[in-house]
Amino acid sequence: MTTEFDLIRNVKSKYGLGRIGDDCAVLPLDGATDMVVTADMLVENVDFRLEWATPEMLGHKSLAVSLSDVAAMGAEPVWAMLSIGVPAGLWKTGFVESFYEGWMALARRHNVELVGGDVSRTPEHIVIDSIAGGRVAKGNAILRSGAQPGNGIFVTGSIGGAAGALKMLLEGGDLDNIPEKLLQRQREPSPQLILAKTLQIKNLISSMIDISDGLSSDLDHLCEASGVGARIDARRLPIDVDLAACFSAAECIDLALNGGEDFELLFTSTEKRSSELELLPVTRIGEITANIGVIELVDGDSTRILEPRGYRHF
Amino acid sequence: MTTEFDLIRNVKSKYGLGRIGDDCAVLPLDGATDMVVTADMLVENVDFRLEWATPEMLGHKSLAVSLSDVAAMGAEPVWAMLSIGVPAGLWKTGFVESFYEGWMALARRHNVELVGGDVSRTPEHIVIDSIAGGRVAKGNAILRSGAQPGNGIFVTGSIGGAAGALKMLLEGGDLDNIPEKLLQRQREPSPQLILAKTLQIKNLISSMIDISDGLSSDLDHLCEASGVGARIDARRLPIDVDLAACFSAAECIDLALNGGEDFELLFTSTEKRSSELELLPVTRIGEITANIGVIELVDGDSTRILEPRGYRHF
Repeated sequence: MTTEFDLIRNVKSKYGLGRIGDDCAVLPLDGATDMVVTADMLVENVDFRLEWATPEMLGHKSLAVSLSDVAAMGAEPVWAMLSIGVPAGLWKTGFVESFYEGWMALARRHNVELVGGDVSRTPEHIVIDSIAGGRVAKGNAILRSGAQPGNGIFVTGSIGGAAGALKMLLEGGDLDNIPEKLLQRQREPSPQLILAKTLQIKNLISSMIDISDGLSSDLDHLCEASGVGARIDARRLPIDVDLAACFSAAECIDLALNGGEDFELLFTSTEKRSSELELLPVTRIGEITANIGVIELVDGDSTRILEPRGYRHF
Repeated sequence: MTTEFDLIRNVKSKYGLGRIGDDCAVLPLDGATDMVVTADMLVENVDFRLEWATPEMLGHKSLAVSLSDVAAMGAEPVWAMLSIGVPAGLWKTGFVESFYEGWMALARRHNVELVGGDVSRTPEHIVIDSIAGGRVAKGNAILRSGAQPGNGIFVTGSIGGAAGALKMLLEGGDLDNIPEKLLQRQREPSPQLILAKTLQIKNLISSMIDISDGLSSDLDHLCEASGVGARIDARRLPIDVDLAACFSAAECIDLALNGGEDFELLFTSTEKRSSELELLPVTRIGEITANIGVIELVDGDSTRILEPRGYRHF
């Protein structure tokens, strides 16, 4: 059966979005610099629900999503645009002002200038399009396509927390009963801009992607772009410590592999350089193989094929 | 009463969108070039209706709207991004593919490269965010703020046609009974990129804005940005010739002044240079005055104050 994801992929591929095939498009800026640009659409009741987050949190997350794309290129964000469509009933509630407050607070933290966008009315639901532009030294943008067999696979920070909070919300969990740290992972993600920049400057990485769809899906994207395979060790996954109190071990692994929305980064590094990474908050979870398109998941003595199963929509 | 337009303006002003206050934001690109960027959101049943246009036409118009913003800066479009959210029911109808066909046909005509964007699902209605980037010689972007008292006011092409077609559609007119040329103005507008570039290169203009909201509103924006007033001669308005067959003279003037969506350009020029404009398809409709914020409409012996009354939403 053709899924919505297949259709989206077909469209992206047919019209050149697939040719770019990265977290951002890379365009020449000047003789020494490339520009990266990205756009992300967030739709009410598809990507977020109003009852689960304040308007400020939604503003924060809308920008964070695009800044994470910029981070995944090893680039520095410079400017952003925000297009937002809001139904008539919300105009007089202060929603838009609060949304912008949250957006601006994160923008200020990363010296990102709001340069434009659009404000419109929608018939029923909020729709946000978040656009960001950044800069990186010419030719130095980190692509998804640079992974080589033998490279180590790493992820930044911890994973599964955002999806854990979402799972509890979807199952009817009360906001008050969900650990605050998990809620924060879901509602106010922090793009890994500084860490990505450090990795890029130190020239430690061969490829990178942000884990927004879920590790299994995003690793699949990276393997596809690089023409490689991967082997992941389930026991090395840096699972969010706050997940263990709420879910079984198997659920934790599932959330970490397929959950998404943590906006951590997955990257590859040449074997000999891996030791240099030990001082950074990153975890080696496996290695790139020559087994094109196949992702193996090792769990103790057993190995199985990991199918990409990330989800973004609820 | 605070209108939706007031709220939008307040938000834009408070968060710096008003600081830019132009059809595009202008950002430094390299030592010799500035970049312009713009984003425009189009919402189903607010900005367009599916029953009035083919998917190809919607794709065309979505890009045209942003290219017109680039034209209004005297800039040349280079790249674009397209974010589109589509309800589940439309995915399998081929809507998205046809939409992109229309988008791409216009993009090819103007050498615009699709570099990215997003594709998402929406609960009920289509939402499109059209983003375009262009280039212009450093410091040469045409702003809204350069008009001076005594400058002539000009518009390109003809006006009122797009709004005339919309009016007939809103009044229940059958597509078959509306003149094809008027329908084309509404559904497949042509951004005035070549003409704008000619004006910019010849250094003929002191300020420019695209007439997307309607002449009365957009002239008001230009006067506000420039700190000036304006006097317009109703009898000089270049009213679309196909309008006269369908509407009274008074209706034609109303559509030309308040209709919008023609995506023609309004610009100002110093008096002594106006003769150089005679060979171009532009019409002088009045002059800039020192009467700050006041737009006078002269019609034969009578003069009245013209209130900005453009509309974009139906």
